[in-house]
Amino acid sequence: MAKASFDPQEFRSALSTFTTGVTIITTRAENGDPVGITANSFNSVSLNPPMVLWSLDKSAMSLPSFTNNKHWNVHILSSEQEALSGRFASRGEDKFKGLDLEPGMNNIPLLRNCTARFNCRTAFIYEGGDHMIFVGEVLGFDKTDLPPLAFQSGLYALAARKPREGVQLSAAPTPECSYTEDLLGYLAGRAHFQMVATLQNVLKSQQLNEQQFFILSVLSIQDSLTLEEINQFVEYTGGAISAEDMASLIEQEHVVLVKKNGDSRYVLTANGRDASLKQIAVAKAVEEQIAKQIGHGDAEALKILLKRVIKATDLGLPDLWATKEENNAKKTAS
Amino acid sequence: MAKASFDPQEFRSALSTFTTGVTIITTRAENGDPVGITANSFNSVSLNPPMVLWSLDKSAMSLPSFTNNKHWNVHILSSEQEALSGRFASRGEDKFKGLDLEPGMNNIPLLRNCTARFNCRTAFIYEGGDHMIFVGEVLGFDKTDLPPLAFQSGLYALAARKPREGVQLSAAPTPECSYTEDLLGYLAGRAHFQMVATLQNVLKSQQLNEQQFFILSVLSIQDSLTLEEINQFVEYTGGAISAEDMASLIEQEHVVLVKKNGDSRYVLTANGRDASLKQIAVAKAVEEQIAKQIGHGDAEALKILLKRVIKATDLGLPDLWATKEENNAKKTAS
Repeated sequence: MAKASFDPQEFRSALSTFTTGVTIITTRAENGDPVGITANSFNSVSLNPPMVLWSLDKSAMSLPSFTNNKHWNVHILSSEQEALSGRFASRGEDKFKGLDLEPGMNNIPLLRNCTARFNCRTAFIYEGGDHMIFVGEVLGFDKTDLPPLAFQSGLYALAARKPREGVQLSAAPTPECSYTEDLLGYLAGRAHFQMVATLQNVLKSQQLNEQQFFILSVLSIQDSLTLEEINQFVEYTGGAISAEDMASLIEQEHVVLVKKNGDSRYVLTANGRDASLKQIAVAKAVEEQIAKQIGHGDAEALKILLKRVIKATDLGLPDLWATKEENNAKKTAS
Repeated sequence: MAKASFDPQEFRSALSTFTTGVTIITTRAENGDPVGITANSFNSVSLNPPMVLWSLDKSAMSLPSFTNNKHWNVHILSSEQEALSGRFASRGEDKFKGLDLEPGMNNIPLLRNCTARFNCRTAFIYEGGDHMIFVGEVLGFDKTDLPPLAFQSGLYALAARKPREGVQLSAAPTPECSYTEDLLGYLAGRAHFQMVATLQNVLKSQQLNEQQFFILSVLSIQDSLTLEEINQFVEYTGGAISAEDMASLIEQEHVVLVKKNGDSRYVLTANGRDASLKQIAVAKAVEEQIAKQIGHGDAEALKILLKRVIKATDLGLPDLWATKEENNAKKTAS
């Protein structure tokens, strides 16, 4: 262990491994102005009497307001309030500008759409090195179902929670087997295939296969594409599409082939768009069902992680949602 | 907002939405016995002088030890120390039994394999309702790269961190498009296909397709299966396997067909096992690469979430790692 007189940056880095939520604490200055700061030094202290604490830098401009006014509100921020956290962490003059405040007890500013809120009255203010420690008695509180924002090692985060019963899928994993259910590739594949299973029923009723589903999806985002362009966009699935594959979609009246300036481009019909919309609706319903079961915050965390994996395993393929110019720029750069 | 004299359970539930890390704090009793408790009320207070705080229930058996001994260690637990957290959260007599302690400063017990550790000397002990607040000056600290354990709303968790640059994949998502990159099904599919892309190269060199890869994988876990059994295990992928598909694997000498008691069972050859091991090695290398890029804790969080999705979308298919008896029991139950 490093002894005293250590590097403050390393000390901060070690401290920041302790995961926290993010709060905004508000009060009102003597002149009536609303005051608020972002703090992750919040924590519960006592249940009876109900008490919480947080600490404030002695050099903070808001210190006089918090020592003068015994009343303050703690807002545990929800996952969608990252921008608000940033706003109240800065030294800006007008942090409350444009915010739709709720009327709070004792005229203390009360922010909306938080995960939980606590209305407090200072019980003690304690000395804590370069910070003051505020201990408040909780006079009232409320709570929503919005997933909370977290913070760890300098980054915002969402909690991926472990169910109490554990996350083992299999009854009896063989320890000597080199293949285990803990392989990320297996888990991603199985999750993908199981999510697609419900969609498969819809595809069956539409007499479409998975590849045709990918084609319709691509055309519903970027319509009027050549076969080559379609193939670029579905290349990530590992499958190649031929003119014959497209012919069956034309036969089913999902797609028409339009020849213009020597180019042959596939265009979605109203029928094809309708089929695609049905598929998207099912995919969204599956997602909603999963979010209900694992929790909306956890589902959001999963999306963040999948996006990071997609970035980490980027194949340099064109971006389905980008313009042609942007994709050409990407191609040139890579 | 609910006013005072509120339900303590609801109050606790509102407080618990604030995400925290998990720490174990150790000291030594007057008689020399090691003492330790699990606490998530830890937080940093001051950088100069370096100070941290945590609070302890006034009714805790360890209170006299922490008020007598000015020295204590804070351990920020890593994601693999859930069991240790549980052990030190209980009122057990011999929490340190069997633990391999490190010699710490001032003879205070020092646990191994933590994310970060702080050696502290009590600076202040403050009144905090039914708890005492311990503020300690940090005399030394260290830090590993182990991802930290988190806690939220009564469940252990891992942080899924958001990169500072955001997680948007596409340059210009069209807001009016009903299909967005934010669809969980799309993200899981894309992540799966991109993870498989590297594997595809190996499969190509082995002259195997994805379906044959699935078959070899199944046989490497549960060898000697009938065609029907193989189909049950790969059913989650949505593809059906025929005797012809198996014939080409036999031709490539990856598999042999063994007839016994009227059953025809496919058995992996040494050659087939070797091909499968190569595939697993690549899948593991891809996973390690991803973990390096997004962080090992985040990769672990992703696995937890994928397992929860797999459970949430369970198709009632047999468990590849379970015994035949267990799978029959599952079949009967569903």
